[in-house]
Amino acid sequence: MRATFLYGAGDVRVETVPDPVLQRPTDAIVRIVRSCICGSDLHPYHNLPASQQGTPMGHEFLGVIEDLGAEVSGLRRGDLVVAPFAYSDNTCDLCREGLHTSCRNGGFWAAGDVGGAQAEAIRVPQAAGTLVKLPVGEESELLPSLLTLADVYGTGYHAAKQARLTSRTTVAVIGDGAVGLMAVLSARQLGAERIILMGRHDDRTKLGVDYGATDVVPERGAEGVEKVRELTGGQGVHAVLEAVGYRDAYDTAFGIVRPGGVISRVGVPQYEEAPIGFGSLFGPNITLTGGPAPVRAYIDDLLPGVLEGAVEPGRVFDQTIGLEQTPGGYRAMNERTSVKVLIRP
Amino acid sequence: MRATFLYGAGDVRVETVPDPVLQRPTDAIVRIVRSCICGSDLHPYHNLPASQQGTPMGHEFLGVIEDLGAEVSGLRRGDLVVAPFAYSDNTCDLCREGLHTSCRNGGFWAAGDVGGAQAEAIRVPQAAGTLVKLPVGEESELLPSLLTLADVYGTGYHAAKQARLTSRTTVAVIGDGAVGLMAVLSARQLGAERIILMGRHDDRTKLGVDYGATDVVPERGAEGVEKVRELTGGQGVHAVLEAVGYRDAYDTAFGIVRPGGVISRVGVPQYEEAPIGFGSLFGPNITLTGGPAPVRAYIDDLLPGVLEGAVEPGRVFDQTIGLEQTPGGYRAMNERTSVKVLIRP
Repeated sequence: MRATFLYGAGDVRVETVPDPVLQRPTDAIVRIVRSCICGSDLHPYHNLPASQQGTPMGHEFLGVIEDLGAEVSGLRRGDLVVAPFAYSDNTCDLCREGLHTSCRNGGFWAAGDVGGAQAEAIRVPQAAGTLVKLPVGEESELLPSLLTLADVYGTGYHAAKQARLTSRTTVAVIGDGAVGLMAVLSARQLGAERIILMGRHDDRTKLGVDYGATDVVPERGAEGVEKVRELTGGQGVHAVLEAVGYRDAYDTAFGIVRPGGVISRVGVPQYEEAPIGFGSLFGPNITLTGGPAPVRAYIDDLLPGVLEGAVEPGRVFDQTIGLEQTPGGYRAMNERTSVKVLIRP
Repeated sequence: MRATFLYGAGDVRVETVPDPVLQRPTDAIVRIVRSCICGSDLHPYHNLPASQQGTPMGHEFLGVIEDLGAEVSGLRRGDLVVAPFAYSDNTCDLCREGLHTSCRNGGFWAAGDVGGAQAEAIRVPQAAGTLVKLPVGEESELLPSLLTLADVYGTGYHAAKQARLTSRTTVAVIGDGAVGLMAVLSARQLGAERIILMGRHDDRTKLGVDYGATDVVPERGAEGVEKVRELTGGQGVHAVLEAVGYRDAYDTAFGIVRPGGVISRVGVPQYEEAPIGFGSLFGPNITLTGGPAPVRAYIDDLLPGVLEGAVEPGRVFDQTIGLEQTPGGYRAMNERTSVKVLIRP
């Protein structure tokens, strides 16, 4: 089959590799019908050291089950399924607590002996706990929206959930990428009435307004902080949903959050140490929360709205390519000419 | 009057200064009946640079109102009152949200033009919002327990509240100082059934067991982390109440917390930067919360239990001194020969 690999910063290649096969009785093999490129794929695209050994890429997919291990229950060959960006058994204590990204038998795509999803097919460990059957056909127009359940929609929703929003919560979303836009949509769904979107790409922030943003702040850094404070009568916001991951986004977050507020991070941090002492988080009683979204936990909540057409998270995809065009898809996202690229392998 | 000042690390002096007087119509003057030394007073006691100018000390007191500004309602001369460790108007938006330590008209004792509480008297700004009348006499045996409402009890309670404990929550408390012990008491009051106290002073941890600790871990650092993990079947705890403030306590906290868990800090951080990236907080979805406790918000909740004798937080005081003995009181707490020193001016 054909699959995508990264050989170093900017060096994306689509190559022929052996087809995946069942390795354990809990595995499934899925033929991928839709995949996509994630904002977080751009981090290694920027800084992966060059190597002879390619790194498989992609962690979002929906597809059709082609083969099933003997111990996989609840699924059949031919089922159209969506997978969260982490696989999990859905039965351990941490999964039962809704924390599938920390599953005791779980893991991530494109790591260890598991392939990436920007490919024609993939081996799915813990298939029964991981895959969720979709009640639509392979040609459904809902596929782009259903694919967002694999990551960006659940990730934006996680940011909003962890911030414990109510209708009285004033929210700022940092970042107008797909996850930021999904955070806006989720904040609105959870009842927030004032949602400030910090982003500077017109096409994206327009979609953000459609999704429920009441204000757009294109300024960044100290200017952006100043602007959000102005918009909130000098107070700052109750909740910041940080959907970028760079250190300056974190600095903006604690610059605009109100005392007693929450910073909820879902952008993968590109830093390890940062201020959390008296002068930043502690003095004003700021809560810092978030992490990799346990997307599996949210699919059941979010799927009905997508099937009914009540929400259209798939609007974040503004370009569709074939698998062979994946290198160009990375370039488009990197150059911000595309919000999110859909792949039809 | 006599009042306590710090002139540099280890240099505590009791000196004669002018009596405080009303400066604003919202002020009160309180004759101090009981004060005490706080674990957080030991931070400047360790590292305040030597100076010609003494720093006033003390932020916990109860006493009798001697004088009242014209605009102070709800209080009378002669009332016995307790004060939180921060003064506040109790009417601004942040106070109404229960965040009195961020009051828009508030502040801290022993700062600016406000004196310290290790003294014979003190001027109280925002008196109507700050002082809480106590329905007991000046010679009541409850005074030590009532004095803990000024800081350590409310602070331990804040740690537990912010961690959103339930009966199913496994809790670890880091630190067997007065605040750590109050965190144990509060965790028990809020229903936690498994409470691991990390501390290595026998007299203190015994009191911790009386207050509800089910396990005591005297080990520190990597050994302490290992021990807590052993006690929790390798899992770690759902909530860590961090009542120390040193960086190694934070490192222990994220070493022992379970994925999806909460680190609730009330020890004043003696560091500004610390790890919060993928390898520490983000990856396992750890929530970091806490800060200076809005003690004023908790007095109404905690006072009845103290008056009824249902709890005895005053047991953290194991030494009583006069105001002139304050330098010795600091030494005793610094040398860990006393948990917490009560001062009768």
